[in-house]
Parts: sequence; structure tokens; C-alpha cells
Amino acid sequence: MSLSIKLHVTTSHLNYLNHHAKTNTNTSTSNIRTKPIYTSNPLIITTSRSRKMSLGSYGAPFIKSSLIEPDGGALVDLVVPESQRGPKILEAEALPKVKLTKIDIEWVHVISEGWASPLRGFMREDEYLQSLHFNALRLKGNGSLVNMSLPIVLAIDDQTKEKIGNSSNVGLLGPSGDCIAILRSIEIYKHNKEERIARTWGTIAVGLPYVEEAITPAGNWLLGGDLEVLKPIKYNDGLDNYRLSPKQLREEFDRREADAVFAFQLRNPVHNGHALLMNDTRKRLLEMGYKNPILLLHPLGGFTKADDVPLSVRMEQHSKVLEDGVLDPETTIVAIFPSPMHYAGPTEVQWHAKARINAGANFYIVGRDPAGMGHPTEKRDLYDPDHGKKVLSMAPGLEKLNILPFRVAAYDTSENKMAFFDPSRAKDFLFISGTKMRAYAKSGENPPDGFMCPNGWKVLLKYYESLQTEESPQQPAVLSA
Amino acid sequence: MSLSIKLHVTTSHLNYLNHHAKTNTNTSTSNIRTKPIYTSNPLIITTSRSRKMSLGSYGAPFIKSSLIEPDGGALVDLVVPESQRGPKILEAEALPKVKLTKIDIEWVHVISEGWASPLRGFMREDEYLQSLHFNALRLKGNGSLVNMSLPIVLAIDDQTKEKIGNSSNVGLLGPSGDCIAILRSIEIYKHNKEERIARTWGTIAVGLPYVEEAITPAGNWLLGGDLEVLKPIKYNDGLDNYRLSPKQLREEFDRREADAVFAFQLRNPVHNGHALLMNDTRKRLLEMGYKNPILLLHPLGGFTKADDVPLSVRMEQHSKVLEDGVLDPETTIVAIFPSPMHYAGPTEVQWHAKARINAGANFYIVGRDPAGMGHPTEKRDLYDPDHGKKVLSMAPGLEKLNILPFRVAAYDTSENKMAFFDPSRAKDFLFISGTKMRAYAKSGENPPDGFMCPNGWKVLLKYYESLQTEESPQQPAVLSA
Repeated sequence: MSLSIKLHVTTSHLNYLNHHAKTNTNTSTSNIRTKPIYTSNPLIITTSRSRKMSLGSYGAPFIKSSLIEPDGGALVDLVVPESQRGPKILEAEALPKVKLTKIDIEWVHVISEGWASPLRGFMREDEYLQSLHFNALRLKGNGSLVNMSLPIVLAIDDQTKEKIGNSSNVGLLGPSGDCIAILRSIEIYKHNKEERIARTWGTIAVGLPYVEEAITPAGNWLLGGDLEVLKPIKYNDGLDNYRLSPKQLREEFDRREADAVFAFQLRNPVHNGHALLMNDTRKRLLEMGYKNPILLLHPLGGFTKADDVPLSVRMEQHSKVLEDGVLDPETTIVAIFPSPMHYAGPTEVQWHAKARINAGANFYIVGRDPAGMGHPTEKRDLYDPDHGKKVLSMAPGLEKLNILPFRVAAYDTSENKMAFFDPSRAKDFLFISGTKMRAYAKSGENPPDGFMCPNGWKVLLKYYESLQTEESPQQPAVLSA
Repeated sequence: MSLSIKLHVTTSHLNYLNHHAKTNTNTSTSNIRTKPIYTSNPLIITTSRSRKMSLGSYGAPFIKSSLIEPDGGALVDLVVPESQRGPKILEAEALPKVKLTKIDIEWVHVISEGWASPLRGFMREDEYLQSLHFNALRLKGNGSLVNMSLPIVLAIDDQTKEKIGNSSNVGLLGPSGDCIAILRSIEIYKHNKEERIARTWGTIAVGLPYVEEAITPAGNWLLGGDLEVLKPIKYNDGLDNYRLSPKQLREEFDRREADAVFAFQLRNPVHNGHALLMNDTRKRLLEMGYKNPILLLHPLGGFTKADDVPLSVRMEQHSKVLEDGVLDPETTIVAIFPSPMHYAGPTEVQWHAKARINAGANFYIVGRDPAGMGHPTEKRDLYDPDHGKKVLSMAPGLEKLNILPFRVAAYDTSENKMAFFDPSRAKDFLFISGTKMRAYAKSGENPPDGFMCPNGWKVLLKYYESLQTEESPQQPAVLSA
């Protein structure tokens, strides 16, 4: 196969890459691959959340992957140690309360585990404004910038603001009314929704999924402050074991003695085009001199739009892809990225990359139109499909991350497999979009051979069948209306 | 008078300030104020554009004010030397042509004189995206950031794009069809107006003046490239002598041996509240240890909205303010900032400040709601009036500039003069907005004594009278319709 991964071209990145490739070539110890302790299926390896974490390669008590430093120098961890929980819960009970939505809780999860390091809570106004205008936060200490492209904010309504009054701390309530966190030294400021939406999405068109779900119905105030989470956030959906924190991921990379970690963000089922580029990336990294590149296959687990495939189905599908050997379980870790999805294209892809820095990945794969979608009211892509990778390659605070843009993969009808698109014989290629894939699955039709591994496809077929069964009782009612 | 200027609070700025204040206190030579060569009226001093520029304090052939370095280290100057004009004009004649609008020419002027240093032409896509997403550009050399909050772009339509074809250079045509500049190594990319407007203004509401004037009617492509201007841009409106370039301003500051330059951007007549804070700033700078702070009174000279007072009237009004001694001509330079106005609030104020860095100002005064206006379709300010100074104080690339936020001034009815607003006796204060001021002038009514110097007010009265004379013939027609 010809050169398929174009390395990001800024000098600093190339220098970094060359330096590391060279270092790794000369370091004979990095050639030793540790045999995984558990089964070779990473889906099983990564479920072993309860095991005692080993010390990293450097024996430090706080294990820090050597590959890339977390933003701000240290991973944020805002979960109250078990020994202090009792008094904190008592304290929280006496505070004014703010009821969280499902998406708010996803953000509490994200912040508490340090995905947004160095952010230590919901944004106060100075952080919000920096995020909105600069996609970056200035560190208080040395004045350097870390990337932060999405405002991570908590909206409250007039009534809640009234209730809080002059209190400087509040308790945050989960769905069942239990207090899950304390927000300290709070600041309340205006929630100008129009400005937030326009600057984050580059449009205010009606029909943006996150906006409709989380902003339009939200209150007109934002509540910032320092977060303390009373116990780790769990969803009890059978998938919590896949929700590895940045700290746990870094420990796992160290345990496996990874000398490169390349992250692949997705919110869709894995087809053979995805697999092609993940495998090809690994090959390229080996060619560069890395001895043990590990793939972090990192599906997004928070809010997604209604017509995306649900997380549980995607996780089952991913496990089939590994079982069928489309991806190598020995060099792959599958875990869930707990963030909600904004569908904010070039703005959001920075968040996706930044969070993976904190999780210890030093390479980030970016494709066509990352975090994009169709324009909600016009017949076009909402974002220029090339802007995502361009913006990512120039974003302040992401200099230390190696960005790996890839060429688009499509179904090559001359070879009956997914391959990198070759414009010189464009007519041989079939583009199977998410919409097209869903249409296949809904109709029970099979996609062309080689598009997706058969067992993975079966998972999707089953899901869409179940949808039709659910929908069918409603159809007569609709018809009779 | 009590403390009226709150210094910007970041440590780096305070350190800078303290350091410089200390240095200046100890440097006895900086106490010597040079007597101006010309009359003490800076409006006359600054008209002497044709005089041979003296060498600066440091005797360098390219005079560089010592107060603050231009962005990128050196001022951009894109005007072709006279000796090379002939062949360049010949070359330009053979190139495909792009016709410029009035606002395009203002941008050519701005870029050519280095206000946007280190920008060397209309933005290519990588600069456009950085400006839109990060309000900053990364320097190719050392990777550091300079501020650049407004996209400075040239829009073309489908027909012009077609005409350009594969040419790598184009000629830019002025209003009379003469070729005023060459754009080299061009790049054509999509002009997504919705995204540009949303990310720049934080709204896409109908009625934004710059959008209606310069974006909505513009083409769907943007044309970037390196600019070469065939001769300096002149407007022949009797005001060209006030249009001092950043280089000329730096020379003037050096000639006057300024040890601090504080810039005041405005697009309105100067009332005594403005004068109060300019005089107060000077007093505060003297208290800090500066010996010769110079005020750069820097009205914006490019596109403004229809109901703003025109530049020629404002310049006449400003000259009366100096003649009447409301501002001290000995320590004031009045010059025109040639940029068009976006009315883009917190995004635009960064541009206003950044351009003044290039002009040699190391202090920038920022007030309530800079570059703001009413929301075009809702009954509220378009921007939070405090966001401008907050965003400015945190903006990447502006760290070296001292930001001077000021308290709001209003008419104190207990003392019959403009004074800093005192919330403890709010009822004594009268806020005279631009709209209110215009209403006074239109009705021929005088504002309260002490609001504006009488001769300055007469200039405005005369202007609004002339407007009514112009409008009156139309009134019967409207009434009879």
C-alpha cells in the first residue's frame, strides 16, 4: 500500500516525531512487549477496573505516562477520597441545591476525572470567555496556553439563582435527588445563548442536536465553581467497566510499555475503512521506529443525536470487530470517552484531541469532517470537511500532540474491499455514508462484502430490527390518523 | 480625585508596569521634554507629513519606538518604493483584475502600512481559520502567537474567480479602474458567510452594519495572497495629512521622547467625559513615575454606520476640543486610524488594541462596551458591556500591552460637570448616550453645561442642521405618500 498517512506538517511536530522515532530506535528495552496479564481481548482486559493498579514504568506513586504530559502538568482528580466522604456529604446536605440534567452529569464525570485538565470545575466567566473567543485557557502560573475549545458550563434558571442567593457553595443533585457533588466558590453570570451557540457552532440554525437538548431548554444563568465529586460517577448500564479514567488509561499504557499511543475517536460502528486506517497508522508508526504502538479505540459515550447508533450497540459491535480479528486485540485498548457530543466540527475536534492528551495519547487520528454533520436547515455539510484537521493542526495548546490526518477510505468495487480512495480511478469507489449504512441495516439488505466484518454487521442488523419492532405498533396509529 | 483608573490585574502586566515605572523614575534623562518643533496644536504638528523624518532616539535607520515591539518584531511596509513602481505597474496591467470596494481599499491601506503586522496581505485560509477560531495567528518562526481577531479577507464572486483561472498573481483595481496593488501567490477558498458572521459577531441577526455593507453583497469566495501596493493609499478628502502610518507615529513618539504612549480609540465626538478619563490617565501615569506620557487620540477613519458622525465632522470637533484646551495639545497627538468598523464588540476591541501596538502605543484605554452597539433585532446591548475589557485583558498576543480599563463617566448634576460615576449617589448622574447626544443636536437643544466644550458642540450642531436641510425636501414627499 502506498503512503497513506500524511504527517502533520508543522516543524515542531515533525521535530518531535523525528526525535522520538530516533530515540525509540536506539532504545532496545522499548522493543520488549509485555504479555498482557488477561485474555488477549482488550475488551476483557479493560473491564478489570477493580484490580489494584500497578506502578508505572517509573515506579512513581502517581503513575504518569512518559509519552505526553497532561495539560497543566498534572491530571486533575476531583473525586473525594473515601475517607472524607462522610463529612462532605453532611456538608452538602446543608447547601442550596442545583438539579443536574443527564448531560450535566456527563460533564461532572468528564471534569472529575481530569479529561479537561487543568479545568477543576464548571467554567467561571473568565474561563468561559477564553474558551468562546480563543479556544484556549491561559495557565495562571506560567501564562502558557492549554486548549479548551468547548465551554464546559452549568446552566441554571432564575428560580435556582434566587434559591442560591449569597451562598458561596452549592450541592449538585443527581437524577434520583441524591447529592453527587459540591461546587465551591461559585460565580453566577449571564448565559447569552445566542452568542454561545454562534461562537461554538458558527451558526444558530434551528436543529443543532446539543443545542436543542441542552441549551435551548436551559436557564439564562451559568454557574461556575470548583468541583468536588462525592463518589465516582457510575451509569449502571453494564458498561461502567469500559469507562476508564485518564489515570487508568495512562496506567494501562505504561503497563503495556507502549512507546506510542494513537487515539481514534468515533461515535459510529467500526467498518473496515476505519480498521484500514487504524492498522495502517500502526504500520506507519512501526516504520518510523516505534516498537510498541498501542491503539486507543475510544468511542464517545455521552449524549449523541437520536439517529446515531446507541453506545451499547456500538460497544457490542466493536467487540465483534476485535473478536473477528479485524483489529488486533493485543495492541488495542477499547474504552469509553464519557463526553457528550456537540457536533460542532472544527471547534469540537479540538476538545476530542485535547481530552486524549490528558488520557495519555500522543498521536491523534483525524479524518474528513470530524464531529461534523449536515447543516440542519440547508442541503450541505455544516462544516467544510477539511477545516477540522486544518484547525486541529493549528490549535493553541495542541502543539505537543502529533496529529495524523488520513486520506478518505471508501469501498473499492474493483477489489471488493475498503481501500484508500484513489482519485485517478474515482469511478471504482463507492462511498457508504452513515445514512447509507443505516439504510442497508434498516432494510435488512447486506452492504457489499468487505465493508464490515459479518459479526459486527449482525449486531447492527439486530439493532435496527429491534427498532422496527418497537416502531411498528405505532405505524397503524399514524396511518389511521 | 479618587483612584479612577484600575490597572489590568494580570501579574505579567503589573510586573511590566512596575518595572517600567521604576526604570523611568530612575532615568533622569527621560525627564527632559523636547519642545515641539511646530505649533503646540498637535493637529498642526501632525499635518507636517512631508517633512523629512528624523532619526529616532537610538539613531537607527528604521526608527523603532522603544516602548513596544511591533507584532512579529518588525513593522510590515508593503508600499512599493518609487524606483520600482514603473515595472510593477506594467506587470500589474497584464494580470487578471479584481475590482475593490471602498472597504476593500481601506483594508489594503491598513495592511500596507503594517497596522496588521505581521500580516502581509489578505488572509489565506490558514490565517482566516486561525483568526476565526483563535483570534490569533501563530508566527512561522518561533511558534509564538500574535493577536488577530478579525478576518482581513477579500471576497470575490464566481465570475471573478473564473476570470482569475490559474493565474498566481492578480491586480487590484481602485474605484476609478486604476490598478492600485498586486496580490501575489494567491489562494482562493470558500467564503462561508454564515460561519464567518457567527464566529466574528456571535450572532447572525439581520442588521449588522458591516455585514450588510461588506459581507452579504460580497462573493462566495475569498482571495488570499501577498500584497504589494503600487503607491500609498490617499483619500483626497483634506484629511490625508492626519493619516499617519504606524511608522510615522512611532517616529513622532520618539521625536517627542515619549516614555509612555496611551491610545484612545473612538468613533464619536469627544465629550468632557472622554477628556476626563484621558487627562486622568495621564495624571495616573505621571504618578506611576512616567515623565512624558503622550496621548494618541486616534479616531477610526474607515467605514462607520450611517448614523455615526462622519469623520470630517469628528475631526473638526476634535480640533476644537484641543483649541479650547480641554485636552493639552502639547501632550496629545491626533491621527486617523484607517480601519473600517465592524461593531463586533469583544472580538473587534482586540483588533483596535493590536493595531495600536503596531503604532507604538504601550497603554490602551478601554471603556464600557467597546466596539459595541445595540442588538439589531432585540432590545438589548449586542454584547455584555463588561466583556470587551475582560476579553481584551486575556487575549493571546496582547500580553505586552498595558490595558487600562476605566470607570464610566457621566454628567454629575450636583457639580454640573462630567465626572466618574459614583454609585453611592447614582441619582445625581445623568447618562448622555450617543443617541441622546444626537437628539440634543438634531433638536438644536444644548446639552447640560459642561458636557462638551462649546466650540466642539457648535461643530455638531452645524452638522445636524445641515442634515436636516438635506432631509427637509424629502419630508413633504414622505408625508404626501
